[in-house]
Amino acid sequence: MNYDFAQLAQQYKTALLDDVLPFWERYSIDQEYGGYFTCIDRTGQVYDTDKFIWLQNREVWMFSVLCNHLEKRENWLAVAEHGAKFLAEHGRDAEGNWYFAINQEGQPLVQPYNIFSDCFAAMAFSQYALASGQDWAKDVALQAYHNYLRRKDNPKGKYTKAYPGTRVMKSLAIPMILANLTLEMAWLLDESTLEEILSATVQEVMNDFYDADRGLMYENVTPDGGHLDCFDGRLLNPGHGIEAMWFMMDIGQRRQDMGLVNQAVDVVLNILKFAWDEEFGGIYYFMDADGHPPHQLEWNQKLWWVHLETLVALSMGYRFTGRSECWEWYQKVHEYSWSHFSDPANGEWFGYLDRRSDVLLNLKGGKWKGCFHVPRAMYMCWQQFEQLASPIG
Amino acid sequence: MNYDFAQLAQQYKTALLDDVLPFWERYSIDQEYGGYFTCIDRTGQVYDTDKFIWLQNREVWMFSVLCNHLEKRENWLAVAEHGAKFLAEHGRDAEGNWYFAINQEGQPLVQPYNIFSDCFAAMAFSQYALASGQDWAKDVALQAYHNYLRRKDNPKGKYTKAYPGTRVMKSLAIPMILANLTLEMAWLLDESTLEEILSATVQEVMNDFYDADRGLMYENVTPDGGHLDCFDGRLLNPGHGIEAMWFMMDIGQRRQDMGLVNQAVDVVLNILKFAWDEEFGGIYYFMDADGHPPHQLEWNQKLWWVHLETLVALSMGYRFTGRSECWEWYQKVHEYSWSHFSDPANGEWFGYLDRRSDVLLNLKGGKWKGCFHVPRAMYMCWQQFEQLASPIG
Repeated sequence: MNYDFAQLAQQYKTALLDDVLPFWERYSIDQEYGGYFTCIDRTGQVYDTDKFIWLQNREVWMFSVLCNHLEKRENWLAVAEHGAKFLAEHGRDAEGNWYFAINQEGQPLVQPYNIFSDCFAAMAFSQYALASGQDWAKDVALQAYHNYLRRKDNPKGKYTKAYPGTRVMKSLAIPMILANLTLEMAWLLDESTLEEILSATVQEVMNDFYDADRGLMYENVTPDGGHLDCFDGRLLNPGHGIEAMWFMMDIGQRRQDMGLVNQAVDVVLNILKFAWDEEFGGIYYFMDADGHPPHQLEWNQKLWWVHLETLVALSMGYRFTGRSECWEWYQKVHEYSWSHFSDPANGEWFGYLDRRSDVLLNLKGGKWKGCFHVPRAMYMCWQQFEQLASPIG
Repeated sequence: MNYDFAQLAQQYKTALLDDVLPFWERYSIDQEYGGYFTCIDRTGQVYDTDKFIWLQNREVWMFSVLCNHLEKRENWLAVAEHGAKFLAEHGRDAEGNWYFAINQEGQPLVQPYNIFSDCFAAMAFSQYALASGQDWAKDVALQAYHNYLRRKDNPKGKYTKAYPGTRVMKSLAIPMILANLTLEMAWLLDESTLEEILSATVQEVMNDFYDADRGLMYENVTPDGGHLDCFDGRLLNPGHGIEAMWFMMDIGQRRQDMGLVNQAVDVVLNILKFAWDEEFGGIYYFMDADGHPPHQLEWNQKLWWVHLETLVALSMGYRFTGRSECWEWYQKVHEYSWSHFSDPANGEWFGYLDRRSDVLLNLKGGKWKGCFHVPRAMYMCWQQFEQLASPIG
């Protein structure tokens, strides 16, 4: 199949503006209590009313980002505000820690054990503050960001089940998301703090978690970047590794560091070679680096976000480097993703396919899938292809 | 296919004595540090050396039970002792709480957050004390049993993430396993304590967790047995429900309460009608009672223990009641299970199949599968069919 950059830009733009955003505007707004529904079935029906803080914040973030980067539409700002007000009132405990889940009315269900609840709150309120001009939202963003920095070396705090000292490991998610989060907060940070944190995260991701011999990104390593021969130590999460690499490309581009950009592209390509399912297509969810059985029973499933992050990484990698392997892989992943995840009959994308690419869960949203990866990737890919179609400068 | 009870008894006996037990005797013994390996691949190779307390205790239990109920073979007692000594030294913290996992050498990896670590320790050391005549093992068993009783109303203690008060639910696993555990401890308990606990668990399982309108066993209910419309509240775990029912039949038979036995059989049959995969065969792992997408990504997989517990429940139900539906379902589940899970080329059973019954993880043991469900079910089914072939009295 031949792809034309302008056509691709148009495809993503149309999907974002005419399908995905209207889907969430139509079905996710809880008019009664505020906030959003995210447990939405194939056709848009709400099947569960619990509110998961990751997803609540991510929807605030998404609609705010569109206001900030695309166009300040009143209806988008209203959706963001609808969630931001509900979350500011119900999302945190008395110390300002973000719960993991609350019920429809906003009463806490799950304690603030998860550092990424703070992370996504910081992202959401930073962008919402920018979109709305509301100063109180800046304070919420900065408080959540400082929670993240405070918690990052002991993310689960008192909820951690690991016995201290026997097997000390750190997780890729922490520095990877900090890189992205810090760029999201850039307008609220001074330049030297920003550069210092970005440098540290690039260093940690590309040295400690990246295994140069194998060309793979590991999910858990020792504090000095070593490997341990245990389930967690052998774990690969290909989608995570690829997502981390587009965060690295983003930083590399910002710094005009083409070495970093090219290294990140190398890693994406290596991960894809390792994690592509040659028999049924698609990218595995989890793998054991040594080929042993992982304990994640969902290991061979094909998840929407893994494929969308890969489309972003490949389109961005191709735009920045022009490397033909990026373009070849892009086409392969594009064909797989658009033909299996999208649902033209009802809108939005399915989230979960089994190994053979049959739909596993008949939903558009749930506990972990909300208004985030699909629209973010649609926006990012649209931008990459628009640049590729008519490069500036 | 026609089955003959004596042939079935022989099939289970041969599988237990000539295949399954030798598999674990050959591959699971850690001669260097003590205890057992459970992460064993298809052909018997150890691929991970971590020691999970559930599975360590379950192997002690299994080999001890065989000594107690079948024949006091020296090599079986030696296997049990090999694990019991290692666990007595390394399995507990200073307060006698059982860790969840330790490393090969016996150093703690995961804190004692899980009440079932105590449960399986009580079962293991009760049976080992009986098999070995060692008094110290009785003390270990009773301490673990009292841990279970102390923790059962707040099983996760300080590790619980649920916010207090918003949504109070209790879990089927707690009373269901207490019923079985208490029978395992019977010889160490006085008769009135035993009967009191058994009555309470029967009452709780058959009234609170059983939904008479639907004929289904729910995984989580409110303290007074009500349903909540949320992910946990709608959750069904068919294998769990069926396993609970053979525990109930066991108690019913002990008490000559044929009403309870027949009720338990009804529930097994109802669960099977609800949870049998008409398209690909086998019993689903998790379901949503209202047909919504569950958040367990492994929901449609076919697990070894689910099918083995069902074979036990159906053979026991048929033996106790003679109901033809038990026999019809038995044959169906037998054919599915033996043709998909067993591995005549290398011994033992696979643990995890995908929905289409293809092998999902190329292993015989892992973090959750050890020397327990396969040999226990082989032993139990052997006994049921031996009784059916030549009933006593």
